[in-house]
Amino acid sequence: MPDIDPWGDVEVGDYSEKMEKFGIEPIEEIADRLPDHRFIRRGIVFGHRGLDDFLDARDEGNEFAMMTGIMPSGVFHFGHKCVVDQIKLYQEMGAQVTIAAADIEAYNTREMSLEESRKLVVEQYLKNYAALGIDLEEVDFYFQSQAGNNHLARSKMFGRYLTQNEVEATYGNADPGKISSALTQYADILRPQFKENGGPKPTVVPVGVDQDPHIRLTREVARKYREQDFVKPASTYNKFMRGLQGGKMSSSDPKSYIALTDSVEDAKDKIDQAKTGGQDSLEEHREKGADVEEDMVFELLAFHLIEDDGELQRIREEYASGEMLSGELKQIAKEKIEEFLVEHQRKREEVAPQVEQYIEENFEFDI
Amino acid sequence: MPDIDPWGDVEVGDYSEKMEKFGIEPIEEIADRLPDHRFIRRGIVFGHRGLDDFLDARDEGNEFAMMTGIMPSGVFHFGHKCVVDQIKLYQEMGAQVTIAAADIEAYNTREMSLEESRKLVVEQYLKNYAALGIDLEEVDFYFQSQAGNNHLARSKMFGRYLTQNEVEATYGNADPGKISSALTQYADILRPQFKENGGPKPTVVPVGVDQDPHIRLTREVARKYREQDFVKPASTYNKFMRGLQGGKMSSSDPKSYIALTDSVEDAKDKIDQAKTGGQDSLEEHREKGADVEEDMVFELLAFHLIEDDGELQRIREEYASGEMLSGELKQIAKEKIEEFLVEHQRKREEVAPQVEQYIEENFEFDI
Repeated sequence: MPDIDPWGDVEVGDYSEKMEKFGIEPIEEIADRLPDHRFIRRGIVFGHRGLDDFLDARDEGNEFAMMTGIMPSGVFHFGHKCVVDQIKLYQEMGAQVTIAAADIEAYNTREMSLEESRKLVVEQYLKNYAALGIDLEEVDFYFQSQAGNNHLARSKMFGRYLTQNEVEATYGNADPGKISSALTQYADILRPQFKENGGPKPTVVPVGVDQDPHIRLTREVARKYREQDFVKPASTYNKFMRGLQGGKMSSSDPKSYIALTDSVEDAKDKIDQAKTGGQDSLEEHREKGADVEEDMVFELLAFHLIEDDGELQRIREEYASGEMLSGELKQIAKEKIEEFLVEHQRKREEVAPQVEQYIEENFEFDI
Repeated sequence: MPDIDPWGDVEVGDYSEKMEKFGIEPIEEIADRLPDHRFIRRGIVFGHRGLDDFLDARDEGNEFAMMTGIMPSGVFHFGHKCVVDQIKLYQEMGAQVTIAAADIEAYNTREMSLEESRKLVVEQYLKNYAALGIDLEEVDFYFQSQAGNNHLARSKMFGRYLTQNEVEATYGNADPGKISSALTQYADILRPQFKENGGPKPTVVPVGVDQDPHIRLTREVARKYREQDFVKPASTYNKFMRGLQGGKMSSSDPKSYIALTDSVEDAKDKIDQAKTGGQDSLEEHREKGADVEEDMVFELLAFHLIEDDGELQRIREEYASGEMLSGELKQIAKEKIEEFLVEHQRKREEVAPQVEQYIEENFEFDI
């Protein structure tokens, strides 16, 4: 078995160990070249590989791109929002943005029909993306199943540059459905660099560590491919939000996440039931204070609901000292989530027809 | 290792053994439903799998198709002509004809660039196909690298229906380049049945036994695929012409074949040097007669140069009895080959500009 299975449910424990093993550099080293962003300030984006070239291109006024994928897997929750925040970060830097909806991958590895993927992608992802401020007309969005002849043909040709051994060492096996999906992903990652898209150009792919195997093999293919030049794609690595009950946040367990389409009432309920770092009794809590790192409500605030570092720090200190109780922390989170969801869902309603029109105008589903 | 490697240089010895093992039926059983053709009369096409459905469709006035591929591998010789003769056979029956140029396969399994494939396909294959009477405007001809979005996307989705074990058992390994090519082939074979091409419909693929693994896995995919119905593709099996020196006819050994673009002089030289079934001395030959089955010149006559069974039978008897000498047999072949090549090459000159125009009008090579 490989160390990390990008199709599995692996929890990634010790980030620093993985970083050393896979040659991931700490983000701090180049943080001053990146825009000020809570994910970077708070170590949520903690590492990178090869981002220097990307930043050089920006500094030199050359083209550069970011690429990400949508793996349709249920409702759109705050874990997914991390990706959107990063798209916006790079877009503000001037990067061209490419977004692939991985319907072939979902078909081959999750037995999801293209229709089902399409529906999830539009309803759960694109409508929320748009409400969060992604202008679909400004990005290269596509479904893998409609990536175009040249994209798909090249992805097949990439197969020449990898061996069964490399695939097995990376993904655990060489099932045809998996290989087929993986090769498609390599083309997705290299798409901003296709000659007809003005490549080669530095491209960054923000991922969780679990997706790093795809990045490593794509870099291998980029180096070996003979029909055009590619820059080896760069990557950044973000921590995963944990589930509200602790453990993994999972689309198949609604109590583990707050969806951006959850009702305010449901969201507040989930916060009420979340795992906290508070102590068992009031007395003990006042004395020892909370274990902030093990508080899922604090994690939600830190990842998404509090932009201001000073405010977050004040809460952290009060909570860690025992001055603030878990119930009080939850109250803060419930107020913030209500504000967020009401505004987000209003925007989502507003942009929904535009998204539907965008899909209608740009795609013909005939496969 | 698998029994038969479609990418290898396997010589197929005992046909009847393979037939039983792979469930191939003797062609005689349905010969009376096929047009009268020297390949069938002479057992050159010796077996089939599932051809009944195909013939039923013809009898019932429904659509039916034949599909074949071009693997660019050097000059076009009499071994390749067997395929063209079969295309014409099925086309005369009323089958729609699909011809795939396997440039992705050549890229992945033979490290041939798309440009090189394209040049070989046009110069060596299409111009000779056209000279032999194939009207390119009447067939669905395409390059795999330009097969279209839906064709390529589906071929990726076919991966879901096969396991690594099946692939290894069939092809010997699960290298990504090989899997990628194989999945493309399954889509090639099923292309006449795509819904946009009016499928499902019975389709026959004439092959050598070495290509049967592709057929078997395509039938597997056709049965399992959930997005549209397919009829499991039928196949016919033809014997391989042996090389002029005995052994395998190979593109990499010019003495083993006569190319349809060889000069008459070169062709006659190759016949002069061919392996015969004649005896060592005149005396012995007169006494024992020739071993006709081991005579490569007779094989050339039987496969391609003599249409009339009576004439071929007369030669066989005279030669087998010792009445005819190897030199005399060669003299017949040299006269026939001169006649054939002069006429073929005149036609090839004549149709070459039409083929070039056809390519120019129908393809844009931008990958």
